Amino acid sequence: MFKGGQTLLKAVSRCVGRSNAVKLKRFNNVPKNQFNTASAMADKFKLPTRYGTGEKSVWVEYIQLALDHKPKANLGQGFPNFYPPDHITNALAAAATSKNPLLNQYTRGFGHPRLVNSLAKLYSPLVCQNLNPQTQILVTIGAYEALYTAILGHVDRGDEVIVIEPYFDCYEFMITRAGGTAKYIPLKPVPDPNCGNNLTSANWKLDMQHLESLFNCCTKMIILNTPHNPTGKVFTMEEMQVIACLCQKFNVICLADEVYEWLVFEPKQHVKMATFPGMWERTLTIGSAGKMFSVTGWKTGWLYGPANLIYNCTVVHQNCVYTCLTPIQEAIASTIEYELARFNTPECYLRSLSKELVPKRDYLANALKESGFIPHIPDSGYFMMADWSKLADKIDLSKEKDEYADYRFTKKFAKETSVLTLPPSAFFSKKSKKLGENFARFCFIKQDENLATAAKQMKDWFCSKKLKS
Amino acid sequence: MFKGGQTLLKAVSRCVGRSNAVKLKRFNNVPKNQFNTASAMADKFKLPTRYGTGEKSVWVEYIQLALDHKPKANLGQGFPNFYPPDHITNALAAAATSKNPLLNQYTRGFGHPRLVNSLAKLYSPLVCQNLNPQTQILVTIGAYEALYTAILGHVDRGDEVIVIEPYFDCYEFMITRAGGTAKYIPLKPVPDPNCGNNLTSANWKLDMQHLESLFNCCTKMIILNTPHNPTGKVFTMEEMQVIACLCQKFNVICLADEVYEWLVFEPKQHVKMATFPGMWERTLTIGSAGKMFSVTGWKTGWLYGPANLIYNCTVVHQNCVYTCLTPIQEAIASTIEYELARFNTPECYLRSLSKELVPKRDYLANALKESGFIPHIPDSGYFMMADWSKLADKIDLSKEKDEYADYRFTKKFAKETSVLTLPPSAFFSKKSKKLGENFARFCFIKQDENLATAAKQMKDWFCSKKLKS
Ligand SMILES: Cc1ncc(COP(=O)(O)O)c(C=O)c1O
Ligand SMILES: Cc1ncc(COP(=O)(O)O)c(C=O)c1O
Repeated sequence: MFKGGQTLLKAVSRCVGRSNAVKLKRFNNVPKNQFNTASAMADKFKLPTRYGTGEKSVWVEYIQLALDHKPKANLGQGFPNFYPPDHITNALAAAATSKNPLLNQYTRGFGHPRLVNSLAKLYSPLVCQNLNPQTQILVTIGAYEALYTAILGHVDRGDEVIVIEPYFDCYEFMITRAGGTAKYIPLKPVPDPNCGNNLTSANWKLDMQHLESLFNCCTKMIILNTPHNPTGKVFTMEEMQVIACLCQKFNVICLADEVYEWLVFEPKQHVKMATFPGMWERTLTIGSAGKMFSVTGWKTGWLYGPANLIYNCTVVHQNCVYTCLTPIQEAIASTIEYELARFNTPECYLRSLSKELVPKRDYLANALKESGFIPHIPDSGYFMMADWSKLADKIDLSKEKDEYADYRFTKKFAKETSVLTLPPSAFFSKKSKKLGENFARFCFIKQDENLATAAKQMKDWFCSKKLKS
Repeated sequence: MFKGGQTLLKAVSRCVGRSNAVKLKRFNNVPKNQFNTASAMADKFKLPTRYGTGEKSVWVEYIQLALDHKPKANLGQGFPNFYPPDHITNALAAAATSKNPLLNQYTRGFGHPRLVNSLAKLYSPLVCQNLNPQTQILVTIGAYEALYTAILGHVDRGDEVIVIEPYFDCYEFMITRAGGTAKYIPLKPVPDPNCGNNLTSANWKLDMQHLESLFNCCTKMIILNTPHNPTGKVFTMEEMQVIACLCQKFNVICLADEVYEWLVFEPKQHVKMATFPGMWERTLTIGSAGKMFSVTGWKTGWLYGPANLIYNCTVVHQNCVYTCLTPIQEAIASTIEYELARFNTPECYLRSLSKELVPKRDYLANALKESGFIPHIPDSGYFMMADWSKLADKIDLSKEKDEYADYRFTKKFAKETSVLTLPPSAFFSKKSKKLGENFARFCFIKQDENLATAAKQMKDWFCSKKLKS
């Protein structure tokens, strides 16, 4: 930055030599310090209005918390901390060091040919369609970019998007960015008189009258996340049928975020919106290799649906990243082929992973009960909502500064137990945050020893609290 | 889709059984076929207005051409068709199969810690700054997403962005998407009286008066791509100094797209805009691991610059992909560390690759001359612009339907010689397309045998044409 009376010409001279600088003299009418001040620059270089004031993210905050506090058990962010099966990681090593020199170079922008072909093989029977790998599938940087292309590619200024709460928080920002308005409807935990205190994710219910009232001629899209994060709810046939009817009645797209489709616990079953009568034409379905194969760091996802809806998504994709990574796509393709070849055997990873998760879920639920929480047992996925309201008198949150009680609780709880969880109010809209405030979200796709550490830390803490009271 | 007189209730019955369907009866007032027609859906589900009519891409068209025609030599898209060095691909294999279970899981959103640290080590001395890896660097899905985050993160409705033509075509779409207006200024080939017919990329000149006239109080950004694609021009100190002066005079950000920074041929040298006096504060610099290590399929790039400018980019990144791939970032980090350890030796890949490219460039230039083209010898990168106007009477373009002569030429030339190239008018704005129409863009980062095939095909073709005339 130019200081004091130093002219641009002098600075230029230093940089390009006197004679060139003289030639440049005509460009030397910069008034001193006119713009090279922090305030002039901050003023002009602020965020474009479409981004508001930026996006405060629970992830950035809690991942930093994990880095700073190094909790003994981090049950916050949703990723396995164990090895994916060898055949998956070996597939990436093989692609990287393949004898085909093109496997480390640019591939087709809308999806590596081998990957879209294997996705077509995998999903065609599941959606009762003969998927065209060229026009009906788009590969993206994780399900995250799939959501982005679907929302930005379809939602226009003035459009409304129905979002079921709690929701994966990026939906909200993406809808706003597209110039749309999110219309929220909460799932609410409704106790079942027959089940006493045994709450499951199925107790989280949608008020169908309320849902119907949200649909109107401005509704462009409804986002349906089933299996659901963070509750673990698997939407019922009946709930889905009502949504399907309303989508058809109001000419609405259903964006089906099914990243946890392979993680449904028996006897529940995943049902695809795209298979309901009349729904294929208006459904975009999203999947994720990261969730499917326990490699969240591979950040590769996809959308499939009718060609006209996929087309809009390709325009957005072409605009922001253009193409996905070749060796990763090759590795995922070969892994899908491997699993397809043993699809009907219990070894198939798409079947075995959910079975592996059940004991982890039950172990955590039990530990939570023994530590004063009321866990809501999930039917799918790897998150558990646990009600901490009975612990309110055992933990002093008065020094925590956050606005919402679950932020205060999860932070203080992490300090006292060294077990990190996430505050679910982050997944509710402003108006409904209170519905999340009594909960903490626990991730249980962790090594057994980490779950054991969490259990021990929580029980020790709970006992010490009981002794005191 | 519902056919004929079939009611929604019937369809529902089929799907959820009669009794549930009856419960759903109240949702059954969908007038027959009201919206389940292609036209009602096409109407509502068209592209949001901000995307115009979509983006016709030279890449989609010419990559399809390559797939359809299988040219004997594909010198179109810019990627090496040879192996990257073993230590690079082995680094990815090692990351994938590492003993650290977290290397296949989500990493820090704005850049994997090991990668941002190694980038800070690499670039700090080159920009005379002590780069803060946490706040001054953002890792992205290729330089492509880096461009997207920089443009969308800074350009607001009504802003102007100065773009030097020819340009990497995505700049245009991204600026439009941000609501900005691109102001174009062409590089024009100006023969040097001392050099006769020996044209180089340095003959492509910017009219500095014209450039100055484009700056005004609405100018938010200028995009400076040096080393330049497709000409191979390395901008001179003097040209850059003028741009630096104008940026300061008008309080403008310089977006420095330097993906070819390591591919400058001696005695030319790459100069970084961020090192000019007063420019660090207003420069965002972009690099690409794909270009740097001959692994375009790894699609990993980055931006660095002052924290306030980087911040805006992180907001966009968080909105569209959130985080990049972990094993790839780990592999790039370890490769950068490896190269840094031998940075001042001729073996360092960041130095050796440009030396490997010079004989390829000269071989291709020679072959082009012998086949009637006038090549403009590039000082950098891996593309060569070649003027085909002297061949106009040897090739019948009358049956080709494209609007621009270079599209007609490259398509007919590919059919007759089986050598695929790209039409440079794709890299000019509508008004200036004629400046590109006499050229074809040849990529020479190919195996010697492919270049030899191209040379033979072109020479045979040229001889046959000469015989005929
Ligand atoms: C409901 C939901 N959708 C999408 C995603 C994003 O998945 P990916 O890592 O494939 O981008 C997640 C990740 O947690 C999720 O929970
Ligand atoms: C000038 C320029 N900028 C950016 C890019 C994109 O690079 P990446 O593959 O890292 O996204 C390219 C690729 O060809 C390019 O030529």
